[in-house]
Amino acid sequence: MKALLLESVKTMPLYKDVEIPRPGEGEVLVKIAAAALNHRDLYIAQGLYPGIVTPVILGSDGAGTVVETGASVSKDLQGMDVLINPNINWGDNPKVQDKKYNILGMPTNGTLAAFVCVKADRLAPKPAHLTFAQAAALPLAGLTAYRALFTKADLKKGEKLLISGIGGGVALIAFQMALALGAEVWVTSGADDKIELAQQLGAKGGTNYKSENWHKALEIKAGGGFDVILDSAGGDGFQYFLDLANPAARIVFYGGTRGSFKVNPQKMFWKQLSMYGSTMGNDSDFNNMLALINQHQIVPFVRDLRPLSEGAAAFADMDEGKQFGKLVLIP
Amino acid sequence: MKALLLESVKTMPLYKDVEIPRPGEGEVLVKIAAAALNHRDLYIAQGLYPGIVTPVILGSDGAGTVVETGASVSKDLQGMDVLINPNINWGDNPKVQDKKYNILGMPTNGTLAAFVCVKADRLAPKPAHLTFAQAAALPLAGLTAYRALFTKADLKKGEKLLISGIGGGVALIAFQMALALGAEVWVTSGADDKIELAQQLGAKGGTNYKSENWHKALEIKAGGGFDVILDSAGGDGFQYFLDLANPAARIVFYGGTRGSFKVNPQKMFWKQLSMYGSTMGNDSDFNNMLALINQHQIVPFVRDLRPLSEGAAAFADMDEGKQFGKLVLIP
Repeated sequence: MKALLLESVKTMPLYKDVEIPRPGEGEVLVKIAAAALNHRDLYIAQGLYPGIVTPVILGSDGAGTVVETGASVSKDLQGMDVLINPNINWGDNPKVQDKKYNILGMPTNGTLAAFVCVKADRLAPKPAHLTFAQAAALPLAGLTAYRALFTKADLKKGEKLLISGIGGGVALIAFQMALALGAEVWVTSGADDKIELAQQLGAKGGTNYKSENWHKALEIKAGGGFDVILDSAGGDGFQYFLDLANPAARIVFYGGTRGSFKVNPQKMFWKQLSMYGSTMGNDSDFNNMLALINQHQIVPFVRDLRPLSEGAAAFADMDEGKQFGKLVLIP
Repeated sequence: MKALLLESVKTMPLYKDVEIPRPGEGEVLVKIAAAALNHRDLYIAQGLYPGIVTPVILGSDGAGTVVETGASVSKDLQGMDVLINPNINWGDNPKVQDKKYNILGMPTNGTLAAFVCVKADRLAPKPAHLTFAQAAALPLAGLTAYRALFTKADLKKGEKLLISGIGGGVALIAFQMALALGAEVWVTSGADDKIELAQQLGAKGGTNYKSENWHKALEIKAGGGFDVILDSAGGDGFQYFLDLANPAARIVFYGGTRGSFKVNPQKMFWKQLSMYGSTMGNDSDFNNMLALINQHQIVPFVRDLRPLSEGAAAFADMDEGKQFGKLVLIP
């Protein structure tokens, strides 16, 4: 079969012929109809995580059809259209992943291939209102966004939410879930066109974080502060979130691309603020996320569909940070 | 009556004759048997808070006996030995205090006097196992510690807790409540004798934060990290708490005497850490704190008892930061 194979770190994955895997005990073979890229795939290729194992087929997000079942797996799954839960071995503690936790697509072979083998308990029915490409855009981003916004920050209907860096996969699906829930959503971006697009899609407003005193401008526009703030950048700009936070606000982040940030403790304790670091999510987060997507018929944004053979070019695109929606590859 | 009166900011309160107040509608007059000092009193005298109103009788902590009841108050309260809840107007949201919230002892006249008037609903029965002086040591520190440790950080029996700066009022009562609950408590201090004393009192161990690589030494001694970390300093040392935090740990602070601190977002999100700013507590925190104190017959540490007339000297003592236990004044 064809697959995007990462042969060693600090190289780009290559479109190669590899053997079709066979489902082992408790596993199924899924014929991939669509697979989405995540920054995680890029960071692995760039060697930015510890303990990277190569060669490996990258890819955590995939949707497709079960074509073969291994031992101890019901044959009824055969032919089922599925979305794959990328969590492997989260463990028993809902609050934090086990040391054995890993994510589909390193060290185990992932979805950027014609076929993938996964445990049968990793399958969820593909949401009926979504195409395979739209469904493939969900797993990793949806899981991360759900845990951050709901499990951690406990976002409620009617609350004011600020999402920084709108356009990324997690930020966008968080945006859609929050709107569906009835939150009032505001955004920041370094690109005015992304802010405009977000406003067309339901954002109440937004500000370009590259402009001077963006936080003051945003506070004026929004008529006050925010109950929940979702970030993945950190860095110097983060400190303004403490000013933009309403009393009892929750600030949650799932990344820190701009590095460390400074916290004024007085600002946090007088306002009784909470701050959460969040990454991925457990199976319960995954199932709750899918339930919300189905209930509100949310359709994730797919920015571009390409053949798997053009995977390397898609990786380069993602690296430029111009995305608004997910990049999906079709084997 | 005699009272410690702060006539203007950036002066020390003076032992003066003032009129005995009369209880208004819904109020009682309490004859103070003992009143404890808090850093809050010192910070007000030093002019470190915004909106300080003078002249004012300072003091948030007091225990005594009801000697007069105002209109609409049951006469049955007369003669009751009470502890005063220093919360005024917390408001309806348990998560954060209202804008009208204030604390007994500025702007309203406080407990550093022979008598004080408070609303009847601010009274709790003095815990039977405590002297007036011990009871007076509880309110503000116990309330702050309870909210931080339990309402915010949700400390559980058997968890490992690190308390920084042991010796201060909040740190010590937090220490006692955590031990009573069955937590394993570790401490830091800038003074070796305070660490030794804490160990004699039940701490599993501790480290002097002035020593080089204290955080590494502590991690080795403690055989790993901590589930809950309680701090009131912030500053440069705070960053090591992220290293000392176990997966899913909660870091909570109720002060920031050493100023801003730096956060590495990766350390927070990979370990799914939570961080809470906390100050004071609501009436439910106050009642829960008292219930815990009564249930476990906890006796707060009183370092020194002095006559109210020596209040100014006690203020100066507190400013030196050498305390281990509360300073209590007797009118």
